[in-house]
Amino acid sequence: MLNITETCLYAKNLEEAEYFYSQLMDFELVAKEETRHLFYKCENSMLLIFNPDHTSRHQTDVDGNPIPLHGDSGSVHIAFSVDQNRYREWKSRLIEHDIDIESEVIWSTKARSFYFRDPAGNSLEIITGNIWNLP
Amino acid sequence: MLNITETCLYAKNLEEAEYFYSQLMDFELVAKEETRHLFYKCENSMLLIFNPDHTSRHQTDVDGNPIPLHGDSGSVHIAFSVDQNRYREWKSRLIEHDIDIESEVIWSTKARSFYFRDPAGNSLEIITGNIWNLP
Repeated sequence: MLNITETCLYAKNLEEAEYFYSQLMDFELVAKEETRHLFYKCENSMLLIFNPDHTSRHQTDVDGNPIPLHGDSGSVHIAFSVDQNRYREWKSRLIEHDIDIESEVIWSTKARSFYFRDPAGNSLEIITGNIWNLP
Repeated sequence: MLNITETCLYAKNLEEAEYFYSQLMDFELVAKEETRHLFYKCENSMLLIFNPDHTSRHQTDVDGNPIPLHGDSGSVHIAFSVDQNRYREWKSRLIEHDIDIESEVIWSTKARSFYFRDPAGNSLEIITGNIWNLP
């Protein structure tokens, strides 16, 4: 069975993205290339943030084998799960940092989530409760 | 700690995407809305495929609370991990289905990966070996 190990977002301004994901989201930065990427560890998978101006145009390679071009300019959605007892804490933390909570939803499963944006405009969501019946 | 629970890709042609992700990639389809989305379960997280023409333009809501607009038109990258003994099998399976293997890379950690595209042009990668030192 395949498991998702890398999830990507795109941000043209990596400096802004680094402040947001390192300081506000508190993810562990494990690799950085000034004009190309920021790689974060999130519990059991990776969040890779790429500058699409770089990855959609400049071919890189590993020992002569190309890394295919990719990159998007708009707004990608991803969701993070959090324990019930940390949900309010995360919401407060973001509000304290002047991050606008765009919406909050209670799903039919009673799971609860709120939505906000990263500086590049990606749509982020923090969910509590087992909305998808995942293991 | 936050964990990624939903990873998204975008595809304007959801019929093509459904064939690819259900038949070739063998993911479990758990929800579908003809012109808007396909939701797949991948081991311990979700792969959501949205039609960006819908999600970037048409506001939906849950009990009056809006789901923020999102959606991208280009090419998002995601990577899947697989056990060493299934890596070749996955490569053969895709080749048998006429999917072009765009590149194959051996990383400095000895992890190995190959790249291919979904019908929408998203850049997919199957990795074996613990490239990121994840738990």
